[in-house]
Amino acid sequence: MGYGEFTAVRRLPGKDLQTPKERRMVKPFICIQSDFDTQGGAPSCMHGIILSVDPELRIYDLSHQIPRFQPWAASWTLSYVMPCWPVGTIFVSVVDPGVGGPRRAAAAKTADGYYIISPDNGSLTHVKSEPGIAEVREIDEKTNRRPGTEQFNTFHGRDIFAYTAARLASGIIGYEQTGPAYPVDTIVSYPLPPPLIIPGCARGIIVSANTHFGTVVSDIRIGGFEQAGFVYGDRTLVEILHEGTVVFKGTVLYHRSFGSVPVGDPVIYNGSTGHIYLSLNQASFVEKYKIGAGSGWQIEFRRS
Amino acid sequence: MGYGEFTAVRRLPGKDLQTPKERRMVKPFICIQSDFDTQGGAPSCMHGIILSVDPELRIYDLSHQIPRFQPWAASWTLSYVMPCWPVGTIFVSVVDPGVGGPRRAAAAKTADGYYIISPDNGSLTHVKSEPGIAEVREIDEKTNRRPGTEQFNTFHGRDIFAYTAARLASGIIGYEQTGPAYPVDTIVSYPLPPPLIIPGCARGIIVSANTHFGTVVSDIRIGGFEQAGFVYGDRTLVEILHEGTVVFKGTVLYHRSFGSVPVGDPVIYNGSTGHIYLSLNQASFVEKYKIGAGSGWQIEFRRS
Amino acid sequence: MGYGEFTAVRRLPGKDLQTPKERRMVKPFICIQSDFDTQGGAPSCMHGIILSVDPELRIYDLSHQIPRFQPWAASWTLSYVMPCWPVGTIFVSVVDPGVGGPRRAAAAKTADGYYIISPDNGSLTHVKSEPGIAEVREIDEKTNRRPGTEQFNTFHGRDIFAYTAARLASGIIGYEQTGPAYPVDTIVSYPLPPPLIIPGCARGIIVSANTHFGTVVSDIRIGGFEQAGFVYGDRTLVEILHEGTVVFKGTVLYHRSFGSVPVGDPVIYNGSTGHIYLSLNQASFVEKYKIGAGSGWQIEFRRS
Repeated sequence: MGYGEFTAVRRLPGKDLQTPKERRMVKPFICIQSDFDTQGGAPSCMHGIILSVDPELRIYDLSHQIPRFQPWAASWTLSYVMPCWPVGTIFVSVVDPGVGGPRRAAAAKTADGYYIISPDNGSLTHVKSEPGIAEVREIDEKTNRRPGTEQFNTFHGRDIFAYTAARLASGIIGYEQTGPAYPVDTIVSYPLPPPLIIPGCARGIIVSANTHFGTVVSDIRIGGFEQAGFVYGDRTLVEILHEGTVVFKGTVLYHRSFGSVPVGDPVIYNGSTGHIYLSLNQASFVEKYKIGAGSGWQIEFRRS
Repeated sequence: MGYGEFTAVRRLPGKDLQTPKERRMVKPFICIQSDFDTQGGAPSCMHGIILSVDPELRIYDLSHQIPRFQPWAASWTLSYVMPCWPVGTIFVSVVDPGVGGPRRAAAAKTADGYYIISPDNGSLTHVKSEPGIAEVREIDEKTNRRPGTEQFNTFHGRDIFAYTAARLASGIIGYEQTGPAYPVDTIVSYPLPPPLIIPGCARGIIVSANTHFGTVVSDIRIGGFEQAGFVYGDRTLVEILHEGTVVFKGTVLYHRSFGSVPVGDPVIYNGSTGHIYLSLNQASFVEKYKIGAGSGWQIEFRRS
Repeated sequence: MGYGEFTAVRRLPGKDLQTPKERRMVKPFICIQSDFDTQGGAPSCMHGIILSVDPELRIYDLSHQIPRFQPWAASWTLSYVMPCWPVGTIFVSVVDPGVGGPRRAAAAKTADGYYIISPDNGSLTHVKSEPGIAEVREIDEKTNRRPGTEQFNTFHGRDIFAYTAARLASGIIGYEQTGPAYPVDTIVSYPLPPPLIIPGCARGIIVSANTHFGTVVSDIRIGGFEQAGFVYGDRTLVEILHEGTVVFKGTVLYHRSFGSVPVGDPVIYNGSTGHIYLSLNQASFVEKYKIGAGSGWQIEFRRS
């Protein structure tokens, strides 16, 4: 009864509360991210498989534009979006360059009650760090692969992940039936060194360098930044290094939003994930300075 | 009881009509547009927040590819798509380069019964002109901001707009509770001079220059065009000016569809919004002649 | 009663089976593909029209990124995605460069029970070949055009296809009421010569050359490939010709997945559609060698 734990509260007209029976009628949502793009129709194959299992399931596309072959990006995006969803939501994450190889197919349960169906290839890194993973199981292909797909090695997103998520959401299998548990500390993870916070200085890594708005996202939390002594209005010395080489060095205003500076100017602000961001107002910092993301990208802020 | 006014009619098998009680069970749809792109997951945060408020709400993505930082484009697209939806639908529009600054957060009600949750930054221009806005309220952040997000200044789409739309759609708040009303004529708008229609000539502005199909959309209605005397088969003199400089000048056939001319040739036709369009058949007029949209782009048609 | 045939099985908590009455409550899904892109909002117009017909219908976007003006791509994608969906699902396919011209608007029913609403312009090619089309009808514009849209010639996706699909899904019209039947063998199709399978050699055409992952998809089925004698580990001579000119010639490993070779290397494998694919591991074969798709693109594999 996977969906028994789904916490979403139905609101009926004139009746905000619900009985336990009504609550049981709500099945958990399935929220999918991948690097598939939509051009070729792969995400729609996953939708179709899920609805073939149970037409009442409700599917949402987180994104199918996760940067190709980058489990790091999948991991960060998952950790960013997950807390906005009702507890119990089942996430399917398929950035899977090693599909058909020895990497594990994982069904993870977070410390706060979400489910993630994903290759165990680094895609669980950030969630494992916070909120933490309470339990992880290796999906058993013998029982959780869509019948008739045994010969296909390259689309586990359709044949295993979507199929397993649908059966879990529908209550056909319980979480325990996804496969045998394995130790959480063996989950494949990128190194996530904690940021350095000292008076007048905060140093961390760049977790995301989105090419759309061109915003640089650091792993330094607002609380840490304030603890280091930064306040709105500070002119801040910023240095970005890639594998030890300086890529950007400059003085940037710390303020409440990108709108706090003229169009085209850089600004530091507390972004929507609760971390410190660096942007150009209505232009792309990422494109202008060729910024990337991952543990090889260091960013340091110093009060000047 | 925001959703009480939703006009969508449920059709049950063998029973096309519905009782007032059945009608009340249908909550208005939420239809979202933004310039967020899907890569980073921001639209999915909005989905999650809405479904956390009420898991029965139904969300549709109008587009998250509205050209970045362009309230004009948001305004036009909204006015184009809105009439296709059931009256009572709640639109959330977030093209918001001034987020965190002094611009108002608006909850507008159109003259024909739709709701729009949007920054008041020009995004309401076309809808204000037609069908007209019956009432507008400034969203009160004290009561309509998602608890715990007070420190975030850059993602009102998630923390205020989606949250407020969800509570309105769910019937948790009524429209009056979004915030205090303010005068409709103070809504921020781009100038929208009426097109000039005289015998043998129609002059207006370019409202959209979509980069996908490369179609130029004018604000001249089919009725006005016909009133000026144009008929299918006319060779028409077209002149496009940007801030007074001629960008295109040529003679173009006016006919029923882009398929009326050979591939690659230009054609004028009555487009799907009820306005006069200019295209190349299976090629991009916008790209070929570097056309843009807005009140600085004038287009004139003359019978030759 | 179009939806009476929909085979999706509702699963209620603790009750996997359903009565005939419960089954009737599930209306078929509508699954839409187009080359519209989402930027301009055209897909959302189709959503709105469908939900205006019946707010209980459930709409899924297959893709709005089908390559522009290419019915071949629409046809292939449809045949790839369709089998993943519950039988009875109604597909709407709108890649329609001849809209407003003499091409037919078709409502097809496949041999295995799916419905397709599409221009009859080649978009039905692959489905006609397999699983086969049992019946096709020309949509009657007099009865199946959205009232008030008679003057629009360029957005049948909204005014005819989405509208008709919605009324069919809702049970307002039956399949017979879409319009008069016409002979299946007059459906417009691209030539689809059967692949050549002889000992040590398989020759076919390239059906898809997706620009996202850059994978080349042949029309040679895994069974035929094995019948020709290929086995995992074979070094295989590959030759690609475009209209008779050699575009690629090389020796490539045949193995179980792209992960079977180093990053950047080419590999042949049995892909997720049941056909033979050619890829670079984590790079784009299509981009590197400028590969296209269609009957003018021949691909040959020889055991070396």
